[in-house]
Amino acid sequence: MTNTPGSTMLPEDRTTLSPAQARELFRNGLAVPTAGFSLGYAQANLIIVPKDQAFDVLLFSQRNPKSCPILGVLDAGETSGELLKGGDIRTDVPKYVVYENGVKVAEPTDLTGYWRDDLVTFIVGCSFTFETALMEGGIQIAHIEAGVNVPMFKSNIRSASAGSMSGPMVVSMRPIPASQVSDAVRITSRYPAVHGAPVHIGNPEELGIMDLSKPDFGDPVDIPAGHIPVFWACGVTPQAAVMESRPALAIGHAPGHMLITDARDSNYLVP
Amino acid sequence: MTNTPGSTMLPEDRTTLSPAQARELFRNGLAVPTAGFSLGYAQANLIIVPKDQAFDVLLFSQRNPKSCPILGVLDAGETSGELLKGGDIRTDVPKYVVYENGVKVAEPTDLTGYWRDDLVTFIVGCSFTFETALMEGGIQIAHIEAGVNVPMFKSNIRSASAGSMSGPMVVSMRPIPASQVSDAVRITSRYPAVHGAPVHIGNPEELGIMDLSKPDFGDPVDIPAGHIPVFWACGVTPQAAVMESRPALAIGHAPGHMLITDARDSNYLVP
Repeated sequence: MTNTPGSTMLPEDRTTLSPAQARELFRNGLAVPTAGFSLGYAQANLIIVPKDQAFDVLLFSQRNPKSCPILGVLDAGETSGELLKGGDIRTDVPKYVVYENGVKVAEPTDLTGYWRDDLVTFIVGCSFTFETALMEGGIQIAHIEAGVNVPMFKSNIRSASAGSMSGPMVVSMRPIPASQVSDAVRITSRYPAVHGAPVHIGNPEELGIMDLSKPDFGDPVDIPAGHIPVFWACGVTPQAAVMESRPALAIGHAPGHMLITDARDSNYLVP
Repeated sequence: MTNTPGSTMLPEDRTTLSPAQARELFRNGLAVPTAGFSLGYAQANLIIVPKDQAFDVLLFSQRNPKSCPILGVLDAGETSGELLKGGDIRTDVPKYVVYENGVKVAEPTDLTGYWRDDLVTFIVGCSFTFETALMEGGIQIAHIEAGVNVPMFKSNIRSASAGSMSGPMVVSMRPIPASQVSDAVRITSRYPAVHGAPVHIGNPEELGIMDLSKPDFGDPVDIPAGHIPVFWACGVTPQAAVMESRPALAIGHAPGHMLITDARDSNYLVP
C-alpha cells in the first residue's frame, strides 16, 4: 500500500481488486479516477434525479442508446441493487457532481447529505469496458498510457430530446493509429451496451470541436503523427442535458470517477 | 385485388406493399394478421398507457429487453412519428385490444373513440423481423407455411417487475428441424432489438407449457417428427403484465396484428 493525495490508502495493484473492495475504498474516502480498477468488471456512469423527472431521463436514454445505454435502474429511494451487491450508491462512487437548476453546486465524495427518498438512480454503460478489449486487440489507449482521464467534448450533434431533457451529445476521443482504426471499429461494435462503435472518425471540426487540446471534461492527450482522432458517444451526455435543461435537482458522477459494478465486461459482448 | 372476409380489398401481393400503403389499408378497415405484409420492413408490438403509468412501462421494458425491446416512443398525445411517417397510431394497426383494470373490454379496429391526450405509445420490436432472416437461412417457419398466426404462450418465467408492472414472460414457439436449431440461434442472435436469440430450446414443460396445441395467443401449429420446439421472448409480454397488474387503462395490438413501421429489418441487424 502507498499513500496517495487522497485521504485513503491506495493498493498498489488496483487492477485485481474485486468491485466490492474497490467500492469500499471509495466509501472510505478515496477520491480518484477509476480507470484501471478491477479489470474485467464494468464501470458505469450515473445520473440520479427525483421521481418526477425520471420518465424524461429514461426516455432520453432510450432515444439516445449510443450515449446513454442503461445497464440498470434503482427504484426511488433504493441505494443498492444487482449491479452493486451490498453496496451503497450514496457513498461507493469516488466523486459526485450535484446540479441545481443545471448549475454545478457541489462535488461531494458522499451523497448522504443530499439523499432523498424520491431519487431514482440510472446506471449507464461506460466506454472503459471496451478499452480492455481494445488493449487486448493490441491497440494502445493514449490516456491510459499517460495516466490521465479520457478527453471528452460537447459535440454539435444534438441528442434526441425527451420531454424536458435536451442537449448535446458528449463524445470521448481516443487517438488510434491509422492502421488500427478498422480494428477499433470492429472491436467496439461488439459492445453496443457500452457505447458500441464510434460515432465519428477523423474530422473533429465536423463535430464542432475546434481544439482537441481543450476538452470540456477530462484531460487532453497528444495525438501522435499517423494517429486519427476517433470519437465515441459518452455517458456524460445526460449531465450535458442537465446543464442545458436545468431540472431543479440532478446528480451525476464526476467524469472519470465511475461506479464499479459487479457485472463482468464480457456480459456486454455480443457475438 | 381480391375480396377478403374483411371490409376492404386485400392486394394479391401484400409482400410488396410499402409500409404507408399497408397502414392505409388497415386505416380503411382491413383487419387481418400482418404476417407477410411489406417484407423487409419491421413490424412492431404496441403498448399504450396514460402518462402516469408510462415510467413503469418504460422501466419494465428496460428491465426485460428480450421480451420488450423498445423501438420508439410517442410522447403523450402524439399519434405519429419517425416509425410511422404520415401515419396515425390510432387507426393504422389492423386491430387493437383495450384493457380496463387488466380485463379485455374491447377489440376495436380504430382507437379514435378511446384516445386521450395523455396516452403514451410504446412501439416494441417483433420477431417477424428475424423470421425473414430465418427463411433466407433456409429455415421454414411452420405458422407461415400454414398461413396462421404464430403460437404464443404465457411461460412460468417471471418478467423483472418495475413499479406497478409485473407478470409472466410470453414466448412465441417455432418448431425447427433439429439439424437447423444451431442456425436458428445464430441467425436470431444477430437481431437483439427484436427479441434476439431463443430463451429456451426443447423442453416446454420446463417453461410450464403442458400442451403445445393450446397456445394462450395465436394459433397452434404441428410439430413434425425430428423438429424441436424453440421459444423466443415475445412482445405480447407487456399485455400479460397488464392483465396481472391491472392498470386502470392500457391498450395493445391484437396479437399478430402488428404496426408496420417504416424501419427496415436490416436496421436492427448487428454484426
